[in-house]
Amino acid sequence: MAADDAGATLSGLGEFAVIDRLVAGRTQPPIVSVGPGDDAAVVAAADGRTVVCTDMLVEKRHFRLDWSSPYDIGRKAIAQNAADIEAMGARSTAFVVGFGAPADSPVAGAVELADGMWHEAGLMGAGIVGGDMVAAPQWVISVAALGDLGGREPVRRGGARRGDSVAVAGVLGRSAAGYALWRSGIGGFDDIRRGHLVPEPPYGQGAAAAQAGASAMTDVSDGLLADLGHIATASGVHIDLTADALRADVAAVADAAAAAGVDAGQCVFGGGEDHALVATFPGPVPPGWRVIGTVAGDGAARVTVDGADWRGDPGWQSY
Amino acid sequence: MAADDAGATLSGLGEFAVIDRLVAGRTQPPIVSVGPGDDAAVVAAADGRTVVCTDMLVEKRHFRLDWSSPYDIGRKAIAQNAADIEAMGARSTAFVVGFGAPADSPVAGAVELADGMWHEAGLMGAGIVGGDMVAAPQWVISVAALGDLGGREPVRRGGARRGDSVAVAGVLGRSAAGYALWRSGIGGFDDIRRGHLVPEPPYGQGAAAAQAGASAMTDVSDGLLADLGHIATASGVHIDLTADALRADVAAVADAAAAAGVDAGQCVFGGGEDHALVATFPGPVPPGWRVIGTVAGDGAARVTVDGADWRGDPGWQSY
Repeated sequence: MAADDAGATLSGLGEFAVIDRLVAGRTQPPIVSVGPGDDAAVVAAADGRTVVCTDMLVEKRHFRLDWSSPYDIGRKAIAQNAADIEAMGARSTAFVVGFGAPADSPVAGAVELADGMWHEAGLMGAGIVGGDMVAAPQWVISVAALGDLGGREPVRRGGARRGDSVAVAGVLGRSAAGYALWRSGIGGFDDIRRGHLVPEPPYGQGAAAAQAGASAMTDVSDGLLADLGHIATASGVHIDLTADALRADVAAVADAAAAAGVDAGQCVFGGGEDHALVATFPGPVPPGWRVIGTVAGDGAARVTVDGADWRGDPGWQSY
Repeated sequence: MAADDAGATLSGLGEFAVIDRLVAGRTQPPIVSVGPGDDAAVVAAADGRTVVCTDMLVEKRHFRLDWSSPYDIGRKAIAQNAADIEAMGARSTAFVVGFGAPADSPVAGAVELADGMWHEAGLMGAGIVGGDMVAAPQWVISVAALGDLGGREPVRRGGARRGDSVAVAGVLGRSAAGYALWRSGIGGFDDIRRGHLVPEPPYGQGAAAAQAGASAMTDVSDGLLADLGHIATASGVHIDLTADALRADVAAVADAAAAAGVDAGQCVFGGGEDHALVATFPGPVPPGWRVIGTVAGDGAARVTVDGADWRGDPGWQSY
């Protein structure tokens, strides 16, 4: 950002000048033939299909500006959309972003937000190809993501079958444990506290799972049990997790959870927002995936742990 | 909606049950192979490219719940995105929607909003393929639109050349005149007041303009002069409008503007939000388009009316 903008506000600089700042110097990937600055962007879709999803983040509900830097919020907003694209067995190619903020917000914050978004998009070789900026009483960020299936069939939630393995790629429980630390004002546990602010979806593992024949997949956004519940419902199956297989995940957050006075098991089984991928496989699971249970039966949708109902909360709803 | 939901709130019914209500009974167009209910949707992109854009609407800034019904807000949110897709010379195929609202909002309002969105999307044979619902202090609606170029090259803003005709398809000035009526609490002028709540972009005319060889195009969202200014800047040209060619547009809103105490010419030349399309053509303009000026020269970007600077405000900025 030019030095003479230091301290400028969105309304002081004006919409079009702010957009110029956000767009300047970004390098679009080669599949983007029209980027920001026109009425719409144009992105290659060589596969002949486009995967698309959207997620909205509202200040104080999904992030707090006193916990997260705008950079981290930008990373998170892209990551959680990219995880949904991964969960179809696709790769993210492009994002568009709606950004609402008070008119007196510093331009520097918007630039940091965009920097974080570009950082995260860069992890998968994707671009931010367009957006909209509006005045709003609080920060609100809406991202839509496009993805490429690379010729594969999408992996849906309804394909799990009895006898499939249930496997996970990525981190579990860290965001929930981190949230408990932040809420309690407890320092230390830096990785875990950061994990709440910036999830790390296992980019590339969605496509790897599709290639390995995954029968159903989703990302862990609401909570492991809640999200597996969506697969169980869509597939009409009973999924049984093995607590032993998740012992290391529980141990990894045990000290932090204890410090914050929450249950580490609950963080792992009921915590969302880490955006791990969870999938079912009729055959061997690919590298980077670990088996945590099985599809134990057909019929009534159900998710159990070692054959029993989970003692806690399976996850989160928006209202 | 089932009778037993009458009066239910979003939090009372719960996120997933609300989504079920919004999705139930909708018919997706054939190009949608995966619709709502999974991590992401899958939409055909036979052209091998996808056009994509996004727009965010915030309560009290872009709409008022005491002026607009949720149905009208849904129509407007889709229409303004679809107009951006049209402005590239494409047709809208699919939309995803982020919707934030207070947890105690009636479910009925969310259903009406979705009904309005489906109505508008139906005008172009498109579907609402996915979304996200979150709790927010006020209504906020973010739409992303996908479009299909049908094998044509996108029409950008930078292609206008000296000697081209400048032409418009759709309505000008009605939304601005309607806004003035609403703001002044003046009844009557029903078409004009409705025009502010629900714009009517000339669907199909974007593709028609592309087919007729349009050299540059945009939609009128900020104001006719402001939006032509974007073409003038991107193309490096001087655009000159002919006031006489817009006399009928001014006359159409003259009584309403007079009643509301605003200038009818200002509504037409500086008013946005009608989402007309404005384009430049090296050859004849297609049916449904009317010539309103010429690309008068190269060099410094400039938009004039009968050779002179406009006496009023060219249009709107977000901050």
